[in-house]
Amino acid sequence: MKIRINEVSPRDGLQSQGKTLSVENRLSLIQALVKTGVKNVEAGSFVSPKAVPQMAGTDELFALLPDQSTVRYAGLVPNMKGYELAVAAGAKVVNVVLSVTETMNQKNIRMSLPQTAEVCTAIIERGRREGVEVQAYLAVAFECPFEGLVEPAVVARFAKLVKQAGASKIIIADTIGAANPEHVQRLLDAVTREVGSDILSCHFHDTRGMALANIAVAVERGVREFDSSIGGLGGCPFSPGATGNVATEDVALLLNSMGYDTGIDPLDLIPVVNLAEQLTDVSLGGKSFRWLNQQASKAAEETGHGR
Amino acid sequence: MKIRINEVSPRDGLQSQGKTLSVENRLSLIQALVKTGVKNVEAGSFVSPKAVPQMAGTDELFALLPDQSTVRYAGLVPNMKGYELAVAAGAKVVNVVLSVTETMNQKNIRMSLPQTAEVCTAIIERGRREGVEVQAYLAVAFECPFEGLVEPAVVARFAKLVKQAGASKIIIADTIGAANPEHVQRLLDAVTREVGSDILSCHFHDTRGMALANIAVAVERGVREFDSSIGGLGGCPFSPGATGNVATEDVALLLNSMGYDTGIDPLDLIPVVNLAEQLTDVSLGGKSFRWLNQQASKAAEETGHGR
Repeated sequence: MKIRINEVSPRDGLQSQGKTLSVENRLSLIQALVKTGVKNVEAGSFVSPKAVPQMAGTDELFALLPDQSTVRYAGLVPNMKGYELAVAAGAKVVNVVLSVTETMNQKNIRMSLPQTAEVCTAIIERGRREGVEVQAYLAVAFECPFEGLVEPAVVARFAKLVKQAGASKIIIADTIGAANPEHVQRLLDAVTREVGSDILSCHFHDTRGMALANIAVAVERGVREFDSSIGGLGGCPFSPGATGNVATEDVALLLNSMGYDTGIDPLDLIPVVNLAEQLTDVSLGGKSFRWLNQQASKAAEETGHGR
Repeated sequence: MKIRINEVSPRDGLQSQGKTLSVENRLSLIQALVKTGVKNVEAGSFVSPKAVPQMAGTDELFALLPDQSTVRYAGLVPNMKGYELAVAAGAKVVNVVLSVTETMNQKNIRMSLPQTAEVCTAIIERGRREGVEVQAYLAVAFECPFEGLVEPAVVARFAKLVKQAGASKIIIADTIGAANPEHVQRLLDAVTREVGSDILSCHFHDTRGMALANIAVAVERGVREFDSSIGGLGGCPFSPGATGNVATEDVALLLNSMGYDTGIDPLDLIPVVNLAEQLTDVSLGGKSFRWLNQQASKAAEETGHGR
């Protein structure tokens, strides 16, 4: 059975880095990822370059993206203007983010929760009319840094809202890496009752080492798409302990081992981890990286010894 | 609901280290663990000091163990002589190991699988007669380094055998860290059909980063006991990539987060990780260790700032 891995390093990963990469370097990371069989990429965001300099030139980047007929590229948009920029740049998939607590919206984007919900549904509805796929992130779906634990019923209500508006995918996002498998089960039970599991994806951070455990129970509940970032790229390099997204190599190894078809061989990801490390000057590599490296060395020895 | 964490660092962790610790240092590690609320410890093994110098003096160690009325200490025994030494040293719980493949037994202890099964059941039956609790490890229960994948039905058959002999606990051991959540589910389904889940415990290694995911699905299937090792101590320090047991701090954090009562606060384990690192000269710390350290610093700042 197929499971879709959605690579978010070019946006969620790079956005939080201290070092700002050139469009050329961002493209080289995407090219390397696509060569390994990655078919879904969040390539960048259409935001103000003043607010997020790391994402400047995303329109330029979209024009250069490789294999556009076979790879599904998404661009994150914060508002209707971002949507228009994304569509003008040729994006066929756009992502909107709806944080499900009032304070997170106030602190993060200075809008109320109802305002954000309105902006998101307006973009989703417009996308539907214009033939643009819009995916909705439900952020801080487990815990909000300001309001604490979030009730599954709240998330289920917003899931229903964005589904009714016409979202092609609803991504349950553990923005601060606070989810645990029990909470994942409870939340997914509540959300699937409202919208089913086919439309769901999950976005986990590995801050507390539980991301793979969360994915394992989400798979059991029928989720067939997960976000991940090469080498775990993401989080803030200036904040010790703020680890990033779950690593793509870990997710691919986990799901392949479980008998699912991700279309990605984790061994092929090793050079991409090294490239991302080189580009960002951040030490990278998921939980399985040491073991994967060992396997790669063994394989090289067996096939290449003496040559 | 309570879940028992069984600390194996003093045996499984230290046994594979390049550095051999004195009995005094082994005792200091156990004392530090017990102070944090650890109530189940595999304290050592009763084996030939020529074969495993790291475990020399385990009889001496058992006489010195702290809080023997409230902490459950186990000693591993390879044969009937080991059983007698353990009982003479005052052990009330002994562990036997039955690798479930022929080649593993041949390579590891130069006995056939039927011979090992006979030795183990003889020890279990004698323990039952003499009021000594005997726990049975089913090793390489997922994959054997020599024979490859192991059929769940094979493990279930040996589980039934040791239960009938009178084992107090059956520990499903992923000796080489090859288990994945799907395999765990399949194996536990087969084993619980034969022996139920109350008698089961699981022993995972985190080689491929999947140990917590495996524990999460095992908990779902009713397993209420897990082995772990402080800081992930274990595996061979001379073999790069051969990572060790799942870390106690990771398991405690996972299970506590899920609402289970392990009786252990993972923050209390930080100094024990540091002690184990200092004693063994091995770099330690589980997947959550960085995050735990950050939480501990925050807590210290909040309570101790300016004092």
